[in-house]
Amino acid sequence: MSHKLPNLGNNPSSTAAGTTPGSFAKKSHIAPGPEGRWTFASPDTPGMPEPSSKTAWDFLPDGWTTEIVDQEGSSKPGETVFRQSDETLRKVTFPADFKPITQLESARLGIVTPEMKRVAERESHLTAEQVRDEVASGRMVIPANRVHLEHQLDPMCIGRASKTKVNANMGASPVSSGTHEEVEKLKWAEKWGADTVMDLSTGGDLDECRQAIIENSRVPIGTVPIYSMIIGRKLYDLNLDIILDSLRHQAAQGVDYFTIHAGVLQEHLQYVKDRLIGIVSRGGSLLAKWMIDHGEQNPMYTGWEQICEVMREYDVTFSIGDGLRPGGLADATDQAQLAELSTLGELTERAWRKGVQVMIEGPGHVPFDQIEYNMKLERQLCHGAPFYVLGPLVTDIFPGYDHITSCIGATSAAYHGASMLCYVTPKEHLGLPKKDDVKQGCIAYKIAAHSADVALGIPGTRDRDDELTKARAALNWEKHFELSFDPDTARAYHDEDLDVDTDFCAMCGHDWCSVRISKEIVEFASGKDDDYKWDRAKVSAALSEEQKEILAKRGVLSPEEIHKLASKTKNAVGAAEKKASCHSDYTDAETAQQIQNSEIVELKVD
Amino acid sequence: MSHKLPNLGNNPSSTAAGTTPGSFAKKSHIAPGPEGRWTFASPDTPGMPEPSSKTAWDFLPDGWTTEIVDQEGSSKPGETVFRQSDETLRKVTFPADFKPITQLESARLGIVTPEMKRVAERESHLTAEQVRDEVASGRMVIPANRVHLEHQLDPMCIGRASKTKVNANMGASPVSSGTHEEVEKLKWAEKWGADTVMDLSTGGDLDECRQAIIENSRVPIGTVPIYSMIIGRKLYDLNLDIILDSLRHQAAQGVDYFTIHAGVLQEHLQYVKDRLIGIVSRGGSLLAKWMIDHGEQNPMYTGWEQICEVMREYDVTFSIGDGLRPGGLADATDQAQLAELSTLGELTERAWRKGVQVMIEGPGHVPFDQIEYNMKLERQLCHGAPFYVLGPLVTDIFPGYDHITSCIGATSAAYHGASMLCYVTPKEHLGLPKKDDVKQGCIAYKIAAHSADVALGIPGTRDRDDELTKARAALNWEKHFELSFDPDTARAYHDEDLDVDTDFCAMCGHDWCSVRISKEIVEFASGKDDDYKWDRAKVSAALSEEQKEILAKRGVLSPEEIHKLASKTKNAVGAAEKKASCHSDYTDAETAQQIQNSEIVELKVD
Repeated sequence: MSHKLPNLGNNPSSTAAGTTPGSFAKKSHIAPGPEGRWTFASPDTPGMPEPSSKTAWDFLPDGWTTEIVDQEGSSKPGETVFRQSDETLRKVTFPADFKPITQLESARLGIVTPEMKRVAERESHLTAEQVRDEVASGRMVIPANRVHLEHQLDPMCIGRASKTKVNANMGASPVSSGTHEEVEKLKWAEKWGADTVMDLSTGGDLDECRQAIIENSRVPIGTVPIYSMIIGRKLYDLNLDIILDSLRHQAAQGVDYFTIHAGVLQEHLQYVKDRLIGIVSRGGSLLAKWMIDHGEQNPMYTGWEQICEVMREYDVTFSIGDGLRPGGLADATDQAQLAELSTLGELTERAWRKGVQVMIEGPGHVPFDQIEYNMKLERQLCHGAPFYVLGPLVTDIFPGYDHITSCIGATSAAYHGASMLCYVTPKEHLGLPKKDDVKQGCIAYKIAAHSADVALGIPGTRDRDDELTKARAALNWEKHFELSFDPDTARAYHDEDLDVDTDFCAMCGHDWCSVRISKEIVEFASGKDDDYKWDRAKVSAALSEEQKEILAKRGVLSPEEIHKLASKTKNAVGAAEKKASCHSDYTDAETAQQIQNSEIVELKVD
Repeated sequence: MSHKLPNLGNNPSSTAAGTTPGSFAKKSHIAPGPEGRWTFASPDTPGMPEPSSKTAWDFLPDGWTTEIVDQEGSSKPGETVFRQSDETLRKVTFPADFKPITQLESARLGIVTPEMKRVAERESHLTAEQVRDEVASGRMVIPANRVHLEHQLDPMCIGRASKTKVNANMGASPVSSGTHEEVEKLKWAEKWGADTVMDLSTGGDLDECRQAIIENSRVPIGTVPIYSMIIGRKLYDLNLDIILDSLRHQAAQGVDYFTIHAGVLQEHLQYVKDRLIGIVSRGGSLLAKWMIDHGEQNPMYTGWEQICEVMREYDVTFSIGDGLRPGGLADATDQAQLAELSTLGELTERAWRKGVQVMIEGPGHVPFDQIEYNMKLERQLCHGAPFYVLGPLVTDIFPGYDHITSCIGATSAAYHGASMLCYVTPKEHLGLPKKDDVKQGCIAYKIAAHSADVALGIPGTRDRDDELTKARAALNWEKHFELSFDPDTARAYHDEDLDVDTDFCAMCGHDWCSVRISKEIVEFASGKDDDYKWDRAKVSAALSEEQKEILAKRGVLSPEEIHKLASKTKNAVGAAEKKASCHSDYTDAETAQQIQNSEIVELKVD
């Protein structure tokens, strides 16, 4: 994020602040989890699948037991009792020689890791113990490969108790891009708020690109390892040994999470033939072809426990891929997708038994009305493992604008149950995203994630919105832009029409500014706040290089006009120039009003 | 819309086509209205306000009666019996000398007007009789001033039984724009799918601008007449005579609907003082000031029946303004807003008694979780009069991107009950929209309206999505772009990376194309369809001027690169050039694959 959210304390956000709630009855709520813990959740529309009554505690490794007990016990080898964040005491027994490696394993032993502490710092509404307990329940993951932690990784979490996260995809393809460009996109995605980044390279030097991205990233890195598994060999020759070698290699490089399409089974393929667009997942289609060619089950499914052992060694988190996700509205929520989702639930249980952290990948094209159902079915079948959703797009007919069609679906998905949103850029379906597409995709998804967090009432998330509203009420443009997610764009658009900060804007002009008039009518809470008081009109600073570029790309001003905005000084835009004067370039609001009245239109509101 | 939706028949849209619905349980439904008619509606989340049990039939003028009867009656003066679209017979009695003027009055007499017939043509899932009955119930309006009908107006409807509509605002302000520019924006908004346009001019020659917009528009035109009422006079001097004169003047010009802020009452102002940003409606703030200065009630409220008489004379439709709409998330769904909404319900009843068509304006900033409640409260308090909603924005901190923040809210609003969506452009809060902003605003809102219609299952609305999915499955790029809402942008983005139409795209490249691989695995329904069969790779036509401009504004290619794309021929991009070859500029897919394999990366999937 370009600006850190001001930390203004925990302010529950889903009722109107400073007012009596009146007859407003609907609120999202904090739903107690099956074990007395809590997550943020939307109320269920009638007909939604019930949440699973199980958590990762129900899928412990062989030889483990757990129960809630009344008193703290002895700490003999192979046994621990610890106080959970809901004040209950949990006793866990385990093989005496067991050493925890993954965050899940530590959490099961009641250990608060340094990564959990760091996560709690970043999620100011959570304690480290709550983070631990959410991880132990399987409802939260901390994707942090032990190797990546030795580089620059700043640990973060994904789960329903925490703020919604955004992933940005990048990676070279055989026809476009290279390592240097991808690292540049990585830094750019981090700047624009990506919480994790997936390197989906299928072209160029995959190994080099992956290494460079891991070394340069502060955010967790995910990959889809099947891509590198089949380069240089025939798909037919893929087998479990190659799969395990390849996973081990990438895990040793420091990849934090792997998308593994182990849920696409032979028996699911019959459901694909009636679809309009078959299989659109690359991993899914490759494995489907492999199964047909061999007449055998998906080797990632049959070899799941061996894969889990590689994952555990480095604490790589599963992102169990949805190889049968729908590729268009027509295929959404169909039998292929739902059959696979059920298998993903089974794989989740098996991974938890091996101590590996799990998230589940979710669909990419879903009509708006089906999103809640999809989210709540996952909560049931996969026991609340964090749901990591691509979009979803809510219409298919707007290629070039799919960052928008999908961020609508993403907002609803995050509100109804998704924990991480995989961005979609304007280039989706058309080509590989360029740098500006990465920015547009990130921003659309920060909008989705933030809006959902506000709607869910995650403490503190609406504070920045309220601060900006106060700045707006006070007509304090500088603060307004400072609080904006993309201050340069906001400033550039404002200055395009009116490069002076007055107590009105070019949208309505001085006399028509409702906020200005409203200020005369009543005293606002914020109006009394000296921090937000608008002082006097002043010419904005000349456009920065970045703002200049934004207006240039926008293409509605000529280069000369932009140059003028960029190089302006008080003299250059002053009273001497007729054109400038109608843009209220005077520093004095009264003079601006006077000019407007005399030159443009007569209007007296007082 | 730039392309007419292909009329492919009525295909109910909210289940997966061509598949067994499987365990998918949640569907939006067609809810029978209180009188046995129907509208499209989302299922109610628990706690939502019940729909009103009344319709416009409960608010007939004095001297009228109505009842459902068993047999067709005589047609004596002052009495009519007609068969409704649900097959029931309705008897209506009325003063014998009554002559209907408005669409509502005609509908009450069972008359199907030419405008209703035209609306039924445009809403292929509705009959003219259904349109009439929806208008009679007050759940639908046809904003068609009798004067505007003599120009180029093409009648349309707004209501829950029909497709969701989009309004684009324009109009000069004292600091920006003029008549010519506004007419140009009007044509541009029509091109990009605006269903109605509001002229919100507060600067320039208002009368001339309004006249020009009415004469040039095929879509209904709305205005906020208070703007012109107070130009050239002091707000304090405003009175009912001036109001009526001004309305009569604009009605005679041909304006189709008026926003009138009659719901802001003296007793509501106490609720404003605790808000973060007070009153953000221009009309609302002006009337509030008037009431405080005079110590009197809102003259538009007290003079409502006289205003209705002016409206009726030309069949101008009310858009009853929400002068107390929230200006930030913090103020959403507060007492000020809800108290006014209750008054809007009262004004609706009073307008219906005068035979005038009504829609209700709705809020601009609402957290995502509160949208359904807002929509369903209107359905209760205003008896289902069409809800015309601005956005709403679901977060405040993304100025410069408010077409996106608001189209998220607009999709949810349309799904839960809004009938028309007032667009928001990227310039919202910052300045007056320019031509490109109008386009971006329109497209974001066509996305919202269309996505909601698909989610509601309005027959036929998903057909174009499915056609595009089929074209995508067949890797038929030409059809893909033809079916896109903005073909030039889609084509330009595609050609930016790969200006040849092959059986893959630059996003994944040949070997990684899941759709291509998937085609090898199973036979798709669409794969067998000769209409969609992909034939052979071919170089796309050179970029059009419009596509060239799109890439230029995009700013990620140099002018030289764009020029190359724009002026290319087979020779210019052929094998001779090393750079071009990596972009697969060959017309032959096998050669492209070969180059890719040898030059970029080795991969064999077969």
